[in-house]
Amino acid sequence: MKLHERAILPKGFKCASRNCGIKEEGRDLSVFCSEVRANAAGVFTKNKFPGAPVILGREIIKNGALRAIIVNSRVSNVGTGVRGIENARRMAIAVSEEFGVPENEVIMSSTGVIGKQLPIEIIENGVRGISEILEADPVVGAKGIMTTDTYPKAISVSVDEAVITIVGKGAGMIEPNMATMLVYIFTDAEIETPVLDEMLRDAVRDSFNMLSVDTDTSTSDTCVIMANGLAGRVDEGQFRETLEFACIEMTKMLARDGEGATKLLLANISGARTEEEARFIAKAIINSPLVKTMAYGADPNIGRVLMAVGKCTDCDVRPEKIEIRINNTLVYANESRVNFDEAEVRKLLGSGNVEIAVNLNAGLGCGTAYGCDLTEGYIKENAAYYSS
Amino acid sequence: MKLHERAILPKGFKCASRNCGIKEEGRDLSVFCSEVRANAAGVFTKNKFPGAPVILGREIIKNGALRAIIVNSRVSNVGTGVRGIENARRMAIAVSEEFGVPENEVIMSSTGVIGKQLPIEIIENGVRGISEILEADPVVGAKGIMTTDTYPKAISVSVDEAVITIVGKGAGMIEPNMATMLVYIFTDAEIETPVLDEMLRDAVRDSFNMLSVDTDTSTSDTCVIMANGLAGRVDEGQFRETLEFACIEMTKMLARDGEGATKLLLANISGARTEEEARFIAKAIINSPLVKTMAYGADPNIGRVLMAVGKCTDCDVRPEKIEIRINNTLVYANESRVNFDEAEVRKLLGSGNVEIAVNLNAGLGCGTAYGCDLTEGYIKENAAYYSS
Repeated sequence: MKLHERAILPKGFKCASRNCGIKEEGRDLSVFCSEVRANAAGVFTKNKFPGAPVILGREIIKNGALRAIIVNSRVSNVGTGVRGIENARRMAIAVSEEFGVPENEVIMSSTGVIGKQLPIEIIENGVRGISEILEADPVVGAKGIMTTDTYPKAISVSVDEAVITIVGKGAGMIEPNMATMLVYIFTDAEIETPVLDEMLRDAVRDSFNMLSVDTDTSTSDTCVIMANGLAGRVDEGQFRETLEFACIEMTKMLARDGEGATKLLLANISGARTEEEARFIAKAIINSPLVKTMAYGADPNIGRVLMAVGKCTDCDVRPEKIEIRINNTLVYANESRVNFDEAEVRKLLGSGNVEIAVNLNAGLGCGTAYGCDLTEGYIKENAAYYSS
Repeated sequence: MKLHERAILPKGFKCASRNCGIKEEGRDLSVFCSEVRANAAGVFTKNKFPGAPVILGREIIKNGALRAIIVNSRVSNVGTGVRGIENARRMAIAVSEEFGVPENEVIMSSTGVIGKQLPIEIIENGVRGISEILEADPVVGAKGIMTTDTYPKAISVSVDEAVITIVGKGAGMIEPNMATMLVYIFTDAEIETPVLDEMLRDAVRDSFNMLSVDTDTSTSDTCVIMANGLAGRVDEGQFRETLEFACIEMTKMLARDGEGATKLLLANISGARTEEEARFIAKAIINSPLVKTMAYGADPNIGRVLMAVGKCTDCDVRPEKIEIRINNTLVYANESRVNFDEAEVRKLLGSGNVEIAVNLNAGLGCGTAYGCDLTEGYIKENAAYYSS
């Protein structure tokens, strides 16, 4: 399986983005739409303070069909009470009027500062006329949803005659719980809603739900898939595999572009007692500030990996059985440090990917988690980010 | 209750420290001893990769009595197998010979790099003659156990005629589980071992076990108390309260001197469904990188606090009931941001203490956790820290 060199939107999908005036400069509003009704499914944050778009989105997605998605950046519409819900609905109404589609087939997201009301008139004004500037390039839509991302993210991959395209944003406040920050998946394959829903949940489980930039679960995480059927039926098994592949690729992109990140950090656990324990330990490794700073410093510090595995006190972790590899070099086995070529491993770690593989030799559970290093850049970005 | 202006060791306790040659400069070896046998109790890390001193220490403390404690810094004796256990034992033997006390009444700790063998001959050499330079000032002992701490930590407090003195070190890899990094408590009060053990566990529960610098649980966490009885019996209830007070004071010192920290971060949860949930949410707040960087930036970012509370998805968190105070200013209630004086709160946050109080209005559970802000200093210290 391999990504297209250049992302495209599947047949019948278009998008547009513009600066509508929420941000002083840069695009702050995106719309994605399908020319026909698309089967749809979605997963949302489990955070107990969900934003208004998440509260409303959970209702809308129950219909199992969508025509359009509208997203603004800069203000998240979280912690905004009844007025927030009303404003989220007005976003859908604006799109419904502009595109002539049913209001309940439009889903909305907002990302940015928490606790401020949306400048809803500005957004409504921005939607007017946006149907006249639609394009087939998903990067255009990706640009309007960025907050602290350093570049717009869109990827495409083929299944038979159909295409799967993912547009995503990430950067910070990322340890999704049932979704990632904002991810929209478009396909022209023909798939029934219940199957689509199940496929999405399966794919999210091993991709976006195994991503963590900073252990902090956003109040706005949303992942929606739209399948408009214009390319006809595809092999279901192959679609499932391809969707998961594409979701993992997008997960890696989001991880590598985490706030301040310079490297992708990947923890690969095998031989755990259960799959649940493997996933738990993988997350513990990629979330450990000491492992994250070790990745940044490109130092093969075995002690920190041992510590991170060992702090999973409810898991079956037996020091005498554990093997650790860093970027494919065996560094720990038989309860002691292996005599490996440190200079060589440092060079590998400097390259941009840090892969920590731990075999617990305790069972058949395995799992992979995705994160990034922790650098001064994260601190700068988040200490300087003012809430008002 | 109040701390002595200057810490002293209780009657019958002495300590010494020196540079024995493990570090190029600075003290790297400390000994604490009691002139008579002291009742003793201890708690240790729950990390699944405990260091050799922890493995051996768990056995030694079962005797319920100690004469001396020996600690080296720079090398932690973790991940060192059978030879590590042997070396830890040799530390106790060296003290036993130098002080003429039973070997099984000497407990040892090592702190520093993981995965390297102790330079045991250098340590044995360092112990020789150390009984001739004993002092009554606990700061002398505190100096020899420092790693990345910026200053030595020792506090004293009185109970009746007795004194409780705590010597501790912290800084990084701190989210203790049944103990903190290294904390030694000395008292001349007369208390039986089983009572001492219970009092220690109670005090640790609400102090060191509610401390987190970076969510990372060390493989060496140790907290030991010695009560030599030279000041006679004291009021038990008062001793218990004083011990807890002193442990919380030391916890705050360790938090505030976390690696790179500029501020103490305190989360005070009330009205939780259970005490367990209160403790869980308090930890979630002080461990959130976004809350930690907000503390550093002195910004009253309510969204990040909501996010951190809301990500405790298994707790009884109801947005409509929650009240949030930052440094005693009400900032969130009735599902929306309170109109408070932001400039004033920023000034308070700049002062060195960031206190976040959350009332969940869901029950009677309460709990407080202690942490620190996250700064470039943490990154620098830990990205530059080489394991060899």
